[in-house]
Amino acid sequence: MSDINTLTINTIRVLAADTVAKANSGHPGAPMGMAPTAHALFTQMKFNPKNPDWLNRDRFVLSNGHACALLYILLHLFGYDYTLDDLKNFRQLNSKTPGHPEADLPGVEVTTGPLGQGIANAIGLAIAQKQIAARFNRPNYTISDNYTYCFFGDGCMMEGVASEACSLAGHLQLGNLIAFYDDNHISIDGDINVAFTEDVLKRLEAYGWEVITVSDADTNWQAIQDAIAKAKKTTDKPTCIKVTTTIGYGSLNQGTHGVHGSPLKPDDIIQLKKRFGFDPSQKFVVPQEVYDYYGKFAEAGAKAEKEWNNLFDEYAGEYPDLAEELARRVKNELPSGWEKALPTYTTSDSAVATRKLSEIVLTKIESVLPELIGGSADLTPSNLTRWSDAVDFQPPSTGLGDYSGRYIRFGVREHGVGAIINGISAYGANFKAYGATFLNFVSYASGAVRLSALSGHPIIWVATHDSIGLGEDGPTHQPIETLAHLRAIPNLMVWRPADGNETSAAYHQALSSKHTPAIIALSRQNLPQLEGSSIEKAVKGGYTIYEVESPKLILVSTGSEVSTSIDAAKLLAEQGTPTSVVSLPDFHTFDLQPKDYKLSVLPDGIPIMSVEVMSPSGWSGYSHVQFGINRFGMSAPAPEIYKAFEFTPEGIAKRGQLTVDYYKGKELLSPLQKPFVSIQ
Amino acid sequence: MSDINTLTINTIRVLAADTVAKANSGHPGAPMGMAPTAHALFTQMKFNPKNPDWLNRDRFVLSNGHACALLYILLHLFGYDYTLDDLKNFRQLNSKTPGHPEADLPGVEVTTGPLGQGIANAIGLAIAQKQIAARFNRPNYTISDNYTYCFFGDGCMMEGVASEACSLAGHLQLGNLIAFYDDNHISIDGDINVAFTEDVLKRLEAYGWEVITVSDADTNWQAIQDAIAKAKKTTDKPTCIKVTTTIGYGSLNQGTHGVHGSPLKPDDIIQLKKRFGFDPSQKFVVPQEVYDYYGKFAEAGAKAEKEWNNLFDEYAGEYPDLAEELARRVKNELPSGWEKALPTYTTSDSAVATRKLSEIVLTKIESVLPELIGGSADLTPSNLTRWSDAVDFQPPSTGLGDYSGRYIRFGVREHGVGAIINGISAYGANFKAYGATFLNFVSYASGAVRLSALSGHPIIWVATHDSIGLGEDGPTHQPIETLAHLRAIPNLMVWRPADGNETSAAYHQALSSKHTPAIIALSRQNLPQLEGSSIEKAVKGGYTIYEVESPKLILVSTGSEVSTSIDAAKLLAEQGTPTSVVSLPDFHTFDLQPKDYKLSVLPDGIPIMSVEVMSPSGWSGYSHVQFGINRFGMSAPAPEIYKAFEFTPEGIAKRGQLTVDYYKGKELLSPLQKPFVSIQ
Repeated sequence: MSDINTLTINTIRVLAADTVAKANSGHPGAPMGMAPTAHALFTQMKFNPKNPDWLNRDRFVLSNGHACALLYILLHLFGYDYTLDDLKNFRQLNSKTPGHPEADLPGVEVTTGPLGQGIANAIGLAIAQKQIAARFNRPNYTISDNYTYCFFGDGCMMEGVASEACSLAGHLQLGNLIAFYDDNHISIDGDINVAFTEDVLKRLEAYGWEVITVSDADTNWQAIQDAIAKAKKTTDKPTCIKVTTTIGYGSLNQGTHGVHGSPLKPDDIIQLKKRFGFDPSQKFVVPQEVYDYYGKFAEAGAKAEKEWNNLFDEYAGEYPDLAEELARRVKNELPSGWEKALPTYTTSDSAVATRKLSEIVLTKIESVLPELIGGSADLTPSNLTRWSDAVDFQPPSTGLGDYSGRYIRFGVREHGVGAIINGISAYGANFKAYGATFLNFVSYASGAVRLSALSGHPIIWVATHDSIGLGEDGPTHQPIETLAHLRAIPNLMVWRPADGNETSAAYHQALSSKHTPAIIALSRQNLPQLEGSSIEKAVKGGYTIYEVESPKLILVSTGSEVSTSIDAAKLLAEQGTPTSVVSLPDFHTFDLQPKDYKLSVLPDGIPIMSVEVMSPSGWSGYSHVQFGINRFGMSAPAPEIYKAFEFTPEGIAKRGQLTVDYYKGKELLSPLQKPFVSIQ
Repeated sequence: MSDINTLTINTIRVLAADTVAKANSGHPGAPMGMAPTAHALFTQMKFNPKNPDWLNRDRFVLSNGHACALLYILLHLFGYDYTLDDLKNFRQLNSKTPGHPEADLPGVEVTTGPLGQGIANAIGLAIAQKQIAARFNRPNYTISDNYTYCFFGDGCMMEGVASEACSLAGHLQLGNLIAFYDDNHISIDGDINVAFTEDVLKRLEAYGWEVITVSDADTNWQAIQDAIAKAKKTTDKPTCIKVTTTIGYGSLNQGTHGVHGSPLKPDDIIQLKKRFGFDPSQKFVVPQEVYDYYGKFAEAGAKAEKEWNNLFDEYAGEYPDLAEELARRVKNELPSGWEKALPTYTTSDSAVATRKLSEIVLTKIESVLPELIGGSADLTPSNLTRWSDAVDFQPPSTGLGDYSGRYIRFGVREHGVGAIINGISAYGANFKAYGATFLNFVSYASGAVRLSALSGHPIIWVATHDSIGLGEDGPTHQPIETLAHLRAIPNLMVWRPADGNETSAAYHQALSSKHTPAIIALSRQNLPQLEGSSIEKAVKGGYTIYEVESPKLILVSTGSEVSTSIDAAKLLAEQGTPTSVVSLPDFHTFDLQPKDYKLSVLPDGIPIMSVEVMSPSGWSGYSHVQFGINRFGMSAPAPEIYKAFEFTPEGIAKRGQLTVDYYKGKELLSPLQKPFVSIQ
């Protein structure tokens, strides 16, 4: 135990072994192998454990989230709000130290564990920093200069989401991103030689990254710090520092898969402690010197934040508008009255595709909301996500834009988009980040969408071409299961607006949201402006859009089928079946309304039939009978497909009448009535 | 029009313009740009248009499926069963020429369009060929030596699924794969410089690929053929031939995004035809010389098949067992009696995790089913997908296995796995291909899973750790929405077996399937062998597993919750509520049973409550009331999570009683009864 640095590194290793052993579950290997890298990094990072939300802190992302014991240990040692007892409660019910890092915990920037996400989140964090710096920095006022650091392993680099994001990071020349590749040669199947023999650094160079190798990262933490210093000098490329480590360093099974995902055996922990000079009879021991040593760095971080606050005060004097904006955004508040920019429509306005109405919204609000940032996965002219005078977020050297730009050319990288906008959102500063693709291809990003919802990042997917209504591109592009999938994800809004007012309402809710992401599903084809719609009604998620007296039937529908349902209701009325129509643009938001309101929309005693041109799965919570599609679509002009599938006023009316006849004389409760609800 | 080759190439270009113009929809640019490459390739490929299913044909995959006009034109010109009228019906209802290529069409190997899938399918096709060759080739009997060719564009290379698969292809040294990168520098957002500036060939080299560049591929088709010849000499690496082309070559807007996804304007088509020596007043013209020229290649292909058939007859004399196996497999038939190898269980057998029961199935059947091939996305010791004496599918030079091996080390590449097993399945020879990961991470592969179902590839996902029952790994790993998502996909079995007999039943159905893929969701935790289960009952997808006389309540459940539901039923009986339990391991299979049978399982007049530890979405088709989870999970030992969420006999019984009370005195129809069904 030659010096405080070695003592600290070994303390981390021993604590990791104890933490995982106590839980009898978890991953000791990576924490033990990466302890020197973590030490080298955290002792030069800028952060204040007493205020984990300081805007200009350096970000750290543990992309190999299974190594979270390492992160919790660091957070404890540096004085974040984690006690030794928290470590002892690793992976236990309601503990602060769950099995993978979760974004709502202090000092945890993003939720990781699903491999490949973290590095892509880190790229989002780096994009956000670049944008903040370009917007707010002024001569003598470096408001933003933080770095984003990331640990990732072989598993992350095998994942496509990481490939997508890393390629974009190279293109974007994100010199503020420094990632550490834990080259330990071990994954769950054993030596990576069985599946992963590519030249990772060469690949990253092909993406436009700077690469540095530290081959003795088990012991030489100074070399790692040197590498970081070198990486910081490379300002126009992200840097990958490959640290060659021994997984489970110090264990009898070091360097093998045996230390990856299971606790060390008691004997092994005893020898480990002896080897590192710790008392084998004691657990969870932290020498006071270690606390003291790390405490100094924590103090320096607190001082740095204080200096930044002083700088910001001066800045506020010189640039009051910018300072006001940033202060507002740090509070995660929208500018008051922003919603007045949302367009409204009447029936005299022409029929327009909701994707076009979405473009109008973005065009109207972009100047009101400087925190709006996003782009499309190479479908800009189809998604209509770029306002006409948008500046592209690009390295200035490309001549295609600059870092103050807010329109991101994501390329055909849907999963990367999902993870990157999660990272932008996680940066703070109230970023309202959106990504766009065809609704069907949001599925490519499923892994990231789920994490948006789990982490509470209020990102937005602009998901156009939302049904068979896209026509000729055919079944490979036509969503059938997609809305059923997305609606089953907890904490996710899934909007499918029927017209202009509902499109504005969807954006109103999505942009106001603090912790719930939103999908906005939009039509390729033109849809009429409806008489009964308004922002005020639609923000409730569901409402009666076409009301008749004493209805014998209620049709409940979304998006492009709402106007067809209204036509069907008119047909039914002519046939002696007065029919109301409910528009239900977002189940999630409707679910949150008071029960009285919901029962006024979907009352007892009247048969309710849903109409939507995709899987009816999930609709029975809001209807007694479902008219949907349980097959794949087809390639043809859209009107022909609608006709073939009988999603016409006549086809709907016919089934509506069958529904009325079926329930004639039967007592009928609202589908909202249930003896109990599922676990919320 | 100097020669027949140029005439042919220009005929393709003009036909592409006509085809897309007639449909007034589609993508002319890539077909026009890639016509020389297609010509160079197809005039040296081995195929018989009169028998598109010949086993040893070369495979061609159009990964940039939007360019399908090119493929349909080639298939027509070479004499496949496509007429000029089929081209005129491009993208029309029920035509043979849909908006993207679909696998059930003659000469179309795989369904493409969703970017990145095709190149990964091609890698699956190449794996399959290597395996077939290793299994069946003998000295003097080259039964299999076909190549797999693939066209892909920038869009494909931006997609993570392609990155994953290409990295694996390099590792596997697939020298039988030759892919053409259409380097046209244009994607939908315009010049790829806005988003995609990486060095693609350097990346592929990093993966272990050979790379060749043809910089004048607009005109120099001979150089492309030379490159193919060179690629064939590289036997231990896949090859990428980068062909630099001009998108929409010949159009006034060539080289721009304007020709990517919209028809050429009438004037433009006129000048195009003039430029290439065609009569501008005529449409869909094919000079007879072109038919004659391509006809010769078609004849050569027919002859090649005939020779192969002769070779195979001789082979059958010398290697009757192998020939019999291959002949059987080509007919897509399983060996008779194979199902006898499936294990069965009684209640005296011990409680075992269904993932372990799955391992037992694989171990028992692998020697009976030589067509079984698959592996895990780096979770072998967790998924338990490798029988103990399996040979790994590896390049022999690695010393880790050989190409006769049937266990694939996929690496952490779920999306790639999904697309690769689709390709293996598409090869024919009755391959039963499986991939494995945690159920939650099947979502990473959503794009490919959907295409398995759409294309009818009967692949299998072994999806372990299927619920909150995985415990400590926590909400990032615990599926909530996953089964709702998968069950909403048409033509997909989603099995969740409750014990050993049901696990065998799931494999029975999945392996017998000809056109329907299957997910098999399996527990991490031990489950008891149940009294009422059997393969015979479970293959119906749903059955009464615990039957009481005159039940007042039916619980319907799957997987790990079935035994808990039976315990709850016993509790309820003690409380005066006789309760039956239905196990419903696969909705899809149950749906296909006769209505009488289904109504005997889920009859009228009795309240039915579903029990499953995830989103209840989709369950209302089989129950009146749902007990599920509409939130994310938590990190803790599994029994504690079940208790916290009240998925205990007591928690289920309590809700069962609420259900009975709620419906007391109310007329109740089976949830299967509906006035009509959705579009099938």
